[in-house]
Amino acid sequence: MRIGVLTGGGDCPGLNAVIRAVVRKGVGTYGHEFVGFRDGWKGPLEGITRPLGIPEVRGILPRGGTILGSSRTNPFKIEGGVERIKQNLADMGVDALVAIGGEDTLGVATKLTELGVNVVGVPKTIDNDLGATDFTFGFDTAVNIAMEAIDRLHTTAESHHRTVVVEVMGRHAGWIALHAGLAGGANVILLPEQKFDLDKVVEHVETRFKTNYSPIIVISEGAMPTDGDMITLNGELDAFGHVRLGGIGNWLADQLEKRTGKEARAVVLGHTQRGGTPTAFDRVLATRFGLHAIDAVHEGDFGKMVALRSTEIVRVPLADATRELKTVPPHRYAEAEAFFG
Amino acid sequence: MRIGVLTGGGDCPGLNAVIRAVVRKGVGTYGHEFVGFRDGWKGPLEGITRPLGIPEVRGILPRGGTILGSSRTNPFKIEGGVERIKQNLADMGVDALVAIGGEDTLGVATKLTELGVNVVGVPKTIDNDLGATDFTFGFDTAVNIAMEAIDRLHTTAESHHRTVVVEVMGRHAGWIALHAGLAGGANVILLPEQKFDLDKVVEHVETRFKTNYSPIIVISEGAMPTDGDMITLNGELDAFGHVRLGGIGNWLADQLEKRTGKEARAVVLGHTQRGGTPTAFDRVLATRFGLHAIDAVHEGDFGKMVALRSTEIVRVPLADATRELKTVPPHRYAEAEAFFG
Amino acid sequence: MRIGVLTGGGDCPGLNAVIRAVVRKGVGTYGHEFVGFRDGWKGPLEGITRPLGIPEVRGILPRGGTILGSSRTNPFKIEGGVERIKQNLADMGVDALVAIGGEDTLGVATKLTELGVNVVGVPKTIDNDLGATDFTFGFDTAVNIAMEAIDRLHTTAESHHRTVVVEVMGRHAGWIALHAGLAGGANVILLPEQKFDLDKVVEHVETRFKTNYSPIIVISEGAMPTDGDMITLNGELDAFGHVRLGGIGNWLADQLEKRTGKEARAVVLGHTQRGGTPTAFDRVLATRFGLHAIDAVHEGDFGKMVALRSTEIVRVPLADATRELKTVPPHRYAEAEAFFG
Amino acid sequence: MRIGVLTGGGDCPGLNAVIRAVVRKGVGTYGHEFVGFRDGWKGPLEGITRPLGIPEVRGILPRGGTILGSSRTNPFKIEGGVERIKQNLADMGVDALVAIGGEDTLGVATKLTELGVNVVGVPKTIDNDLGATDFTFGFDTAVNIAMEAIDRLHTTAESHHRTVVVEVMGRHAGWIALHAGLAGGANVILLPEQKFDLDKVVEHVETRFKTNYSPIIVISEGAMPTDGDMITLNGELDAFGHVRLGGIGNWLADQLEKRTGKEARAVVLGHTQRGGTPTAFDRVLATRFGLHAIDAVHEGDFGKMVALRSTEIVRVPLADATRELKTVPPHRYAEAEAFFG
Repeated sequence: MRIGVLTGGGDCPGLNAVIRAVVRKGVGTYGHEFVGFRDGWKGPLEGITRPLGIPEVRGILPRGGTILGSSRTNPFKIEGGVERIKQNLADMGVDALVAIGGEDTLGVATKLTELGVNVVGVPKTIDNDLGATDFTFGFDTAVNIAMEAIDRLHTTAESHHRTVVVEVMGRHAGWIALHAGLAGGANVILLPEQKFDLDKVVEHVETRFKTNYSPIIVISEGAMPTDGDMITLNGELDAFGHVRLGGIGNWLADQLEKRTGKEARAVVLGHTQRGGTPTAFDRVLATRFGLHAIDAVHEGDFGKMVALRSTEIVRVPLADATRELKTVPPHRYAEAEAFFG
Repeated sequence: MRIGVLTGGGDCPGLNAVIRAVVRKGVGTYGHEFVGFRDGWKGPLEGITRPLGIPEVRGILPRGGTILGSSRTNPFKIEGGVERIKQNLADMGVDALVAIGGEDTLGVATKLTELGVNVVGVPKTIDNDLGATDFTFGFDTAVNIAMEAIDRLHTTAESHHRTVVVEVMGRHAGWIALHAGLAGGANVILLPEQKFDLDKVVEHVETRFKTNYSPIIVISEGAMPTDGDMITLNGELDAFGHVRLGGIGNWLADQLEKRTGKEARAVVLGHTQRGGTPTAFDRVLATRFGLHAIDAVHEGDFGKMVALRSTEIVRVPLADATRELKTVPPHRYAEAEAFFG
Repeated sequence: MRIGVLTGGGDCPGLNAVIRAVVRKGVGTYGHEFVGFRDGWKGPLEGITRPLGIPEVRGILPRGGTILGSSRTNPFKIEGGVERIKQNLADMGVDALVAIGGEDTLGVATKLTELGVNVVGVPKTIDNDLGATDFTFGFDTAVNIAMEAIDRLHTTAESHHRTVVVEVMGRHAGWIALHAGLAGGANVILLPEQKFDLDKVVEHVETRFKTNYSPIIVISEGAMPTDGDMITLNGELDAFGHVRLGGIGNWLADQLEKRTGKEARAVVLGHTQRGGTPTAFDRVLATRFGLHAIDAVHEGDFGKMVALRSTEIVRVPLADATRELKTVPPHRYAEAEAFFG
Repeated sequence: MRIGVLTGGGDCPGLNAVIRAVVRKGVGTYGHEFVGFRDGWKGPLEGITRPLGIPEVRGILPRGGTILGSSRTNPFKIEGGVERIKQNLADMGVDALVAIGGEDTLGVATKLTELGVNVVGVPKTIDNDLGATDFTFGFDTAVNIAMEAIDRLHTTAESHHRTVVVEVMGRHAGWIALHAGLAGGANVILLPEQKFDLDKVVEHVETRFKTNYSPIIVISEGAMPTDGDMITLNGELDAFGHVRLGGIGNWLADQLEKRTGKEARAVVLGHTQRGGTPTAFDRVLATRFGLHAIDAVHEGDFGKMVALRSTEIVRVPLADATRELKTVPPHRYAEAEAFFG
C-alpha cells in the first residue's frame, strides 16, 4: 500500500509525533510505503511532495511544528480542486490518505471520503474543542505553557501590587483559560462561553487586594463583556482577512486600572502557546493516534477518525469530528468559581 | 462542620493542590472549619495537628510535597490504634475526615468507615495503578520528568555511541515506564507486567546500533528477566525493612555491555520523579479531586472516594480503591512494541 | 548590630536569594539582628516593617518576587522624607541598611550615605545595564525565558511560513535582545543602541524566506527605526504617568507584513520575563551578592556596592552604580550580525 | 580556505552551537569551505568525514550532543598516528582545524601545533575546570539540571523526613557541586578539593532535622572522606578500563542512615547532566567561542585557544588550556559554608 500523509491548519505540538508513529508502524509492521504531502491540502492539490520514510521521521518526536508544513488551503473552494486531488493521487499511486488537522482539514476529509477518496483522519486542535474526542494533542502543552507564565506573573503581580490580566488562546471555547487558570491559581477566569460582568470582575479584584495578594485574571481571547461591544474589538481583520488576535486582554486591563485605581497590566501569550516541544501527555496521545490511524488504514476502515475515550483510542465517523464545537459546560465553569476573588 | 485533612504514603506532586481545593471550597462555599492532621494516620492517632485555613493554603498550589507531612503509620497495626483515633476525633470535635493517599492510606480509611468514622478518600499514587480511576495525580508529573531526562540522554547516547538504560519508578505496574518510554522515544520498554527476554533486548540494541543511532532502554524498577533471578536483586532491604529501589537498571547495563561489546550506562531517576512542582494536568486533576471530595463530605456521602472517569469526576465506594492493582494491559504494551529496535 | 533590608524598583528574579543570604550569614556567622522594611524606601520612610530572621527566609531561595515587597517611592521627592527616614532608623535602633535595587534605589542610597546613613547597596536590574558590574542577577533568567519562547516560536513560524517578531524588555539597553537573540537563533536583532533601517530588515526577512525557513526577529521594546517616528509610539503614558511598554513589535510586524506580502505576527513577552524562579546563574550571583553585602556591613564598609568582576565579587563606591548606563557596545552587536538574514 | 572541524571527549551541551557559529561566520563572512571530521581525532586519523555547510548546521543551535560525534581517540597513542593525520589533511586540502574539546583533545591539538598543523582550539568541559577561561560552556546547563533536581528533592525530603544525598559530576573539581548546591539551597556541599569529615556531616544533618526541615547534601562524585578509604570505592573499572562513576553518594547515604537513625537516600544524577538543550548562557558562550575561533583561523593565528575573560572573548596559547586544573579555591568553598547545617 502507498499512503499519503498531510497536516493542515494551525501549528500544534504533537503533529510530528503523529507522523512518526504512522510511518514507524506503517513501514515496520505493515510494510507500507509513504508519501509526504506538503502544506496541508495544497500538497495533494498541487502534487507537492517530500520523501517520508523511517530516516525522515528520526528525531522528530520531541520537535514542535510539522516536517510536512501546513496551510489552510481548501480544495472545495478552488475550481476543479477535488478532481485535481483525485488525479494526483491516482498518478502517484497513492491508495489512501492520513489527514491530520482540525475542523477545516477534517471537513475536507469528510467530503472527499464521500467522493471516494480513502481517508483516515487524526483530530488536531490546540483549543480542545472537538466533540468527538476527550482530548486533542497540543492542548496539554498549551495549558502548561500558559500555567508556567501565570506562575511567573504571580510574583511580579505581588511585588508590584498590580493586577495582571493574562490573555490565552480560545476564540470560541475556553478550555485553555479554564485549565490554565485552575492550574495557575487565577483569581478570575473569563471564557467565551459566558459573557462576563465587568462589575463582578472589579469586585473580585478588590477582594483580592484586601488579602494583601495581587489578582491574576486569565481570559480567553474570545471572551466578551455582557454589553457586547467587544465584537467590534475582536472583529478587526489583517491584510489576509484573518481575524486579529488580542484586544480583550488589554481592554480589560485598562478598564480595571480605571475602576480600581491600581495599576493593571495585560500579557498576551499569543503564539508561544502553540509551538515547541510537546508535553508527555501530548506525545503519548499523538503517538497513539498515529498508531491507531495506520491500523485503520491497513484494515481499509476509511472515513473514520481516531479519538480518545477515557484511556482508550477508538474510531468514530469522520463526520463526527466537525458536527459540534465542544465548549466548556456550565458545571465545569462552576467548579472554577470556588476560587474566584 | 469541622473536618480533618491528612495525607499518607509516598510523596506525590499535587497533594498540596488537593488540600488547597478542599479548604478553599470548604471555607468559602460551605463555611466549614478545618483541622490539619500531621504525617498521615499518625496525626489523628497521636492528636498532632496544625492550623488549616485560607491563609495556610495560600501559595501552595504550585508546590510539591505536602504541608501536612506524611508517614506510613497504620493504626490497625497498633494496639488500640483505632480507638485512639475515634477518641481523638471526638475530643477535637472533628465530624469527618478527608484522607488523601494510596492503597495503604485508603485501606485504613475503608476499614475506619466500616467502624463508623466519616471518611471521604482522595486517591494518590504516582504509579497510576489504582483500578478505580482513569488517572491519579502525580503520575503525569513523574512521566514528564522521566521524559525530559530521556530527551537529554538521547544526545549523550549518540555522541558517545553508548547504550543508556533509564530506570524509572514502578515496582508492580509499568505505567511510568510505558508513558515515559513512548514520550521519550525509547527503543525498548521493559515492565513488571511481562518478564523480559534478555536475548531479545540484546537483539534490539544491536539493530539500533546498525542505524547509527544509539539505544535508550526504559525499564521499571520492578521489571525482571525471564530467568527470575532478579527477585533476590530487588529483595534487598534497608535498615528500616523497606525494599531498596534500584538494581535492575545497573544489572541490565552490565549485561548489555558484556553481550554487545559496546559501553552501556544506567541512570536511575529515583526520587527526582516524585517531588517538585506538578504539571498542569496534575494540578487540575488534584484540584478537581479536592473540590469533589469536599462536596461529598458536605453532602454526608461518606465511605466514598473521588475518581476520574473520562473527563468527569465521579464517586466510587472507598473499597474499590484497593480492590485491584491496575497494571498495563497487554494491548497497551503491544502498541509500544511498534517502536522497539 | 541591627540591620534593615529593603528591595526597590521592578520585580527581578533573585531578590529573595539576596535577602536569604544576607540574613543567613548575618544571623548565623555574625549574630546580627534584622528588620525587613516593606516596599522599598516607603518602608523606612513610613516605618513599615516585617519580621526578618532565619524562619522568614526558609524556602524563599527558588521563589521569584520579593518577600519584602517593592515600590518606586523616592524619599528625596517627598517633603521632609530624608529626615523621617533618619528618625525612623534611629527610633528602631537600626544601625545600617542593605538596599537592593536599581538605578533609582541606589541613587537614593548614594545620597543617603552622603547624609550619614550607613548603607551597603546590592545592584539589581533585569536589563543588565549597570556599568559597575559584569552582570546583574535577573538578567540570565529573563534571557532564558525569552530564549524558550523563541525556541517555541521557530516551529510555528516555519509551519505557517510566517515572520515572527518577538519584543523583549530593554528600554535603553539591548542586552536581553542581544543574548536572547543569539541564544534563540534569531535572524535579526534590533536594539535601542542602534536605530534600525527598515529596508535592511525587509531584506533579511526576504533572504530568510528564500531558504525555506521562516524569520524570527528579536527586538528590544526601546528599539527605533532610523526615521525616528517611533518616539511618539513609545511615549504613551498610562494613568500613573508610567511609559507604556509595547508598541514597536506590533508596528514592525505590520510593516513587514505590508512590505513582504507574507503574514507577520508580533509576540510581546512583557512581564513574564521578570517573574518566577531564578536560573542557577542568578541564584548563585544573588546569593554571593548577599553574602558579600553583609560582610561589608559587618566591617562597617558603608557607601559601597557589591559587584561582579569576572568570577569574583568586589566592592565599588555606591556612586559608581548610577554613573553610567552600560549599553551594548558596537563590537558585541557586530558579533551577532554574522547570523542576520 | 578549507577548514576541518572536530569535537572530542565527553558530551557537553553547546558543542553544536560552536560548530554552527564557526560554519555560519566562516561561510557567510569569510567564504571558507568546511569539512566535518567524525568522532574527534578518529576523524582526521582515519579520514572519516561528513559534509559541513550552512544546510548541515540549520536548526542545531538548541540541540544537545554533537552532529560530528565524539571519541577519546588519541593519535599520539597510535603508531604513526600523527603522520596519518598530516597526510589525510594534506590529501583533503584541509588548511586548518578547529578542535573543540577538553584537556585530552586540546592536549593533542597543542602537540600537533608544535608539529606544524594549523589548529585553533575551543575549550569544552562540563566540569568548568580549565584554568585559562572564566567559564566553559556546558557547565551552566549541568548546574541548572542539578539545581532543578535538588528543587524537586527538597519537597520529598521534607514530606518523608529523610536525608537526601545528591551526587553530581566532578571527579577532580567541585564546581558543579558548589554552584548547584548554592543554587539549590543544599545544607552541606562536599567537593573533591577538600576531604570531608563524616562526623561533621552527621552533625549538620542532625542540626537540620531539629529545625523540622530535611537535609539535602550535594556531593561531587570525586569527593572523599578524610579516612581515604574511598579510593577503592571509586577505583572500580568497567569492561573498557574506564573508571565507574557513582559510589560515594550511596556510601554516604548508608553511613548517614546508620549514624543518624533516619532514612537516607542517594540520587545519582549521572549522565542526565551532560545532555540535552543548552541554557542561554551556554548557547551564547558557545556561539561566541565559535565566532572568535573562526576569526583566529581566518587571521592565521594558530596554536591559540579562545577563552572567556569577564565578558570578553580573548585568545590564549593552546598550551595554557592544559597547564593546570582549575579547582574550587578555599574562599569560594568558605562562602558556601555560611549555609551549612
